[in-house]
Amino acid sequence: MVKVRRKRSVQHLPQQSFLHPILAPDSIAIIGASADPTKRGYKALVGLIKDGFEGRIYPINPKTDRILGIPTLPSVDALPEPVDLALICTPAATVPELVRQCGEKGVKGVVVLAAGFRESGEAGAQLEQALVEAARATGVRVIGPNTNGLFNLHKKVNLLGLTNVQPGGVGLISQSGNMLLALTLEAENYGQIGFSTYVGPGNQADVGFSDYLQYLGEEVNTEVAAFYVEGFNNGRQFIDTARAVTAVKPVVVYKSGTTAAGRQAAKSHTGSLAGSYAMTVDLLRQVGISVVHDSDEILPVAEGLSRMQKAAGKRVAILSDGGGQATIATDRLTEAGLELATLTEETQAALRAILLPHANTSNPVDVAGTSDTDPYVLAQCLEILERDPNVDQLFLVGMFGGYHLRFAEHLIGQEMRAAETIIELVARTAKPVVIHSLYTPVKPPPIRRLREEGIPVYASIEHAARTLAALGERGIYLKNRNKQTQVVTFEPDPEGLALFERANHEGRNLYEHEAKQLLQRHGVTVPEEILVRHPDELEGLSARFGQQPLAMKVVSRDILHKSDAGGVRLNLHSDASLRAAYDDILASCRNYQPGADIHGVLVSPMAPRGVEVIVGVVRDPAFGPVLMFGLGGIYVEVLEDVAFRAIPISRYDAEAMIDQIKGRKILAGVRGEAAVDRKALADLLVTVSGLVHAYPQISELDLNPVIAYPKGYAVVDARIICNPGV
Amino acid sequence: MVKVRRKRSVQHLPQQSFLHPILAPDSIAIIGASADPTKRGYKALVGLIKDGFEGRIYPINPKTDRILGIPTLPSVDALPEPVDLALICTPAATVPELVRQCGEKGVKGVVVLAAGFRESGEAGAQLEQALVEAARATGVRVIGPNTNGLFNLHKKVNLLGLTNVQPGGVGLISQSGNMLLALTLEAENYGQIGFSTYVGPGNQADVGFSDYLQYLGEEVNTEVAAFYVEGFNNGRQFIDTARAVTAVKPVVVYKSGTTAAGRQAAKSHTGSLAGSYAMTVDLLRQVGISVVHDSDEILPVAEGLSRMQKAAGKRVAILSDGGGQATIATDRLTEAGLELATLTEETQAALRAILLPHANTSNPVDVAGTSDTDPYVLAQCLEILERDPNVDQLFLVGMFGGYHLRFAEHLIGQEMRAAETIIELVARTAKPVVIHSLYTPVKPPPIRRLREEGIPVYASIEHAARTLAALGERGIYLKNRNKQTQVVTFEPDPEGLALFERANHEGRNLYEHEAKQLLQRHGVTVPEEILVRHPDELEGLSARFGQQPLAMKVVSRDILHKSDAGGVRLNLHSDASLRAAYDDILASCRNYQPGADIHGVLVSPMAPRGVEVIVGVVRDPAFGPVLMFGLGGIYVEVLEDVAFRAIPISRYDAEAMIDQIKGRKILAGVRGEAAVDRKALADLLVTVSGLVHAYPQISELDLNPVIAYPKGYAVVDARIICNPGV
Repeated sequence: MVKVRRKRSVQHLPQQSFLHPILAPDSIAIIGASADPTKRGYKALVGLIKDGFEGRIYPINPKTDRILGIPTLPSVDALPEPVDLALICTPAATVPELVRQCGEKGVKGVVVLAAGFRESGEAGAQLEQALVEAARATGVRVIGPNTNGLFNLHKKVNLLGLTNVQPGGVGLISQSGNMLLALTLEAENYGQIGFSTYVGPGNQADVGFSDYLQYLGEEVNTEVAAFYVEGFNNGRQFIDTARAVTAVKPVVVYKSGTTAAGRQAAKSHTGSLAGSYAMTVDLLRQVGISVVHDSDEILPVAEGLSRMQKAAGKRVAILSDGGGQATIATDRLTEAGLELATLTEETQAALRAILLPHANTSNPVDVAGTSDTDPYVLAQCLEILERDPNVDQLFLVGMFGGYHLRFAEHLIGQEMRAAETIIELVARTAKPVVIHSLYTPVKPPPIRRLREEGIPVYASIEHAARTLAALGERGIYLKNRNKQTQVVTFEPDPEGLALFERANHEGRNLYEHEAKQLLQRHGVTVPEEILVRHPDELEGLSARFGQQPLAMKVVSRDILHKSDAGGVRLNLHSDASLRAAYDDILASCRNYQPGADIHGVLVSPMAPRGVEVIVGVVRDPAFGPVLMFGLGGIYVEVLEDVAFRAIPISRYDAEAMIDQIKGRKILAGVRGEAAVDRKALADLLVTVSGLVHAYPQISELDLNPVIAYPKGYAVVDARIICNPGV
Repeated sequence: MVKVRRKRSVQHLPQQSFLHPILAPDSIAIIGASADPTKRGYKALVGLIKDGFEGRIYPINPKTDRILGIPTLPSVDALPEPVDLALICTPAATVPELVRQCGEKGVKGVVVLAAGFRESGEAGAQLEQALVEAARATGVRVIGPNTNGLFNLHKKVNLLGLTNVQPGGVGLISQSGNMLLALTLEAENYGQIGFSTYVGPGNQADVGFSDYLQYLGEEVNTEVAAFYVEGFNNGRQFIDTARAVTAVKPVVVYKSGTTAAGRQAAKSHTGSLAGSYAMTVDLLRQVGISVVHDSDEILPVAEGLSRMQKAAGKRVAILSDGGGQATIATDRLTEAGLELATLTEETQAALRAILLPHANTSNPVDVAGTSDTDPYVLAQCLEILERDPNVDQLFLVGMFGGYHLRFAEHLIGQEMRAAETIIELVARTAKPVVIHSLYTPVKPPPIRRLREEGIPVYASIEHAARTLAALGERGIYLKNRNKQTQVVTFEPDPEGLALFERANHEGRNLYEHEAKQLLQRHGVTVPEEILVRHPDELEGLSARFGQQPLAMKVVSRDILHKSDAGGVRLNLHSDASLRAAYDDILASCRNYQPGADIHGVLVSPMAPRGVEVIVGVVRDPAFGPVLMFGLGGIYVEVLEDVAFRAIPISRYDAEAMIDQIKGRKILAGVRGEAAVDRKALADLLVTVSGLVHAYPQISELDLNPVIAYPKGYAVVDARIICNPGV
């Protein structure tokens, strides 16, 4: 087993998942066990025996008495006990009936390897439906179908027959079998990380991602849960589960389909619903999941998160010998949103006392050759840096193994001593210590020693930097978790409900002024506006609005694009121009869409200039209601610079959305302009989130544009599409 | 030596560089040769002897007769011949005098290891000046000082004493010694790539980056030149040299300092002038250099470029077994600007004929288990894909070595046969074939076989994808190189020169109207405008401009920020409002800056609304005149979405600049608006470039904003800062 040193024991959620007996079984049936070494029904059996599985194994095959010397059973019915897990190796067509037999026998869970279900077309979908019905009717749970299987290495259950995997702390759920192989081979090469559980979720006909996540959160050998995901069918359940799991252990997700072409490729692979990548990433991060962008980063980041303390913040001290790799480290850390710590004068003086005169004692610290003759100095420097109150994380770049090059062989003793000191430091500090070494390819003894103690040593500065970033983000998430989870919700009010009832009764969406009324009832400031249903009502409006320039917009259940229909007139200064505009609008709209029902027009003062933002809500098929915020106009359309959060949100989420967009600089004021009213915008976001949560009648909501000002904002247009069923 | 298979021999520039005898010496003196094994003067000597250097070695040390049995010389003067290269291992203070002695003796080049020169402060800078003077006076060339040395492995010259390096095709110049070590260790682990030449350029007191680049372009063992650069002192010379080198062999640059913090770190490391990263990258790419963003990518991309044909285009066919890694590959390729090829019906039919029914024969092609029993099918699929005319590049993802897992050991024979077929395919096709395998960590025989033949097998999908992107970019660059190098230049005209003479005589920059006159003389369309020097001249202007709304701007040598000074009035509709504006402007400006010289005001029609862009020129200390293009206003200031090119540019460059910015979608028309006049914008960029090239009097130029229209553009403001010296 891969050794793991940690300072405080990893926490786990209380064991409640139905998956515990299934994924850590004491008794296993192999349905379709075989003596043919090319068959899975053989390989799984051999694997269990070779690995020394300590539970009871029941090969089932009606055509033979013994396989590998073990007596077989003729049928599921012949099982002497209701086993924890049955592996079904037989073809798809036989599966529903076998699942029913297992369920009736009291088997807790089955793994269905066969393909030929939903992923293969209509006939397969019907077969999958039959499988699900058999399971539901009898109570057995189903992993797969169309899976490559699972392992639980601590329990010596390895149904895949992989020989290269070591038990350890990584729980892995992967929609790609090749990704499993790649990660196990990488772990084998790395030599410092092992796995607890793997499951290929297959078609997730029954057991799905969130079930596995819940299990990994509870499972005592799992220190980090890692997911390779092509698409979420029930993303909302996944993030709800993750909210609890990330509080006790790290969760890493690689989501494929970052591009439209990639989503298309994933779709033809698994038939998953693969939504917008940016949205998915935002929602996963909202609940404290560490999302990696490159598949290369899954294992290094998962390892770092499982082995290291989370960081208290983003301030990193870099220690190197030579400036080149320190510069690369600085670039990558800064790109990842971290900062170089400003070292105290005391720290710098302590460093000066032990380093050569030309060393650089400000961050990044460069020992500049001091370690050529005295590698132990690196450990001393790390100890000094660790004591600096301005430092949240430590990053040792490029070192260890210099003796590998022939002119430094005599230094190995000192390097080993440095490694021991670092091992002690890591054991006692609450700050992450991330180590990169250019010598990892040759695995020199000090690096092997560090790895033995469960301290990761990275071969790639890039991966090390992204691990530091993940440690920092996780630390900051946990520090703010209480704020983040204080979501704001409220009850619908009777008059609000009445608006929807009336619209529903009339078979339409809310009118713009109704949408604004609803917003106003729950605390959103909306501009004064008057619904005019007859031209006579225009009389005196100009004076009533104090001669401000006015805007007039058509109100119609039938006209979706008011501007296109000629339904909007701006800069109206008098009752006469209001009347002319009224006539124009009615004529244009009737011409544009003959027979359109015109409810009236809205008259309101023109909103002064400010910064255009957009607030929107969609109900995503996988993630449910999602709030979107961004700068308005071309920023949204061209640059796609928007932030997403699952509804309901907290005030912390609202502020994080504002801080997340690149256009935040514009909100903070550019070219000498004043900053917009951040508090008011955050209030608006929280209220819109609460509103959509309170009224399931809302299918879509768009406030576009909202004009933000140094004080307050103006909701210029509001559109609410109703959910006819609710 | 690492074997390299290639279809056509790499080209080299004709040998003209002065560095050939120095970097491939037949005779070497070691000044400060030593018997102390910890000293460089010992290590270098041992290295030469152990590696079997076939030339003549002269250890110089006045204090001993023999070192390692070799007779020493007491001084440089005692050398029996003017050696090609002298390695100076002695302390900094001794160096200038030794350099002088070497020069007087006729030594061609010296390598100065000592630190303590410019990088260490004022005294060191003086010592470096003395070193340079000694070299200039005597004709010897200097590598360093403050370098870790060099090697030429084909010549068996390894002054660093590294034991882990193999001769091969990568010529490496690195400002970081650790980066050299990291790359050699990576190459050793990879087992398929070797090095021709390495030089640590040190302070570049004499020989600099562009000299090394020229040499590597000429050197016959070098197939790719790779640079780790912290900062360019003479970037212009580097890109001028690169233009010739990239035409014959690939050049890969990793430029550190992507962030401001990183540039600060690099500065304290080498004292280099490290300019804007985005600008540097654009200028390097302009001349066909492959720029990698991650330090991890240097070796994989260099190897791929040196081993593989360049691609004819961006259309990639992906072949995988299982969709997961194909999806990752699709994402990474698309992110890197490549496309999935659309396979012909013929190709798909041919694939269907040999694959299992549920395989996916559209791109990405997924053999979906066919290779589980028949790995040779992968080679057959590759051959089919290679014949598809829609395919520019081939990407085999995830394969080879399946037998590593115990249930597939019997397949090794077929895998080896597939490898042989792929080797033959690579030898005969002009299309790049990039291979990724998840089995690389265990180095199975088919992968070893491919590597033996010089075919890279990547462990990382990410690195493989970036290699494909580099191959595609290089192919497209070479295809368009003729267009790209057709830079547009012209001669200054007498009246243009007169404008600068007058301004120079008056000790000022060009007035706005003069800048516009200059632009107009060389073909830029500028709006009609009238310089008004007395209020009486305003009479009738409103009528003259046909009652269009007018703008008025102050013209003053002293007022730099016209708007801040109250020097701009817009939307003037009558002679009366012009007169009032004139009085306002003069009063405001005199109030804002008492004593400011007011030359007059400019009156012009307001430019209609359109898309604001900005065209600017700066003279960069390292790269000389550089043209910048971007969308105007907050796009430049907040999003830094701009493109740079070294002046003079070609029309191809101009169009590439327009295509490069993210805001290109806005130029192409969003929300149903018409596209702007791309041809006119490209003309403008080419003309501004030519203008700055023709008039060295121009120090900075800013056209901000230019308003682009569906037909033509309007240069609303123009500012030219003069170079007082010219």
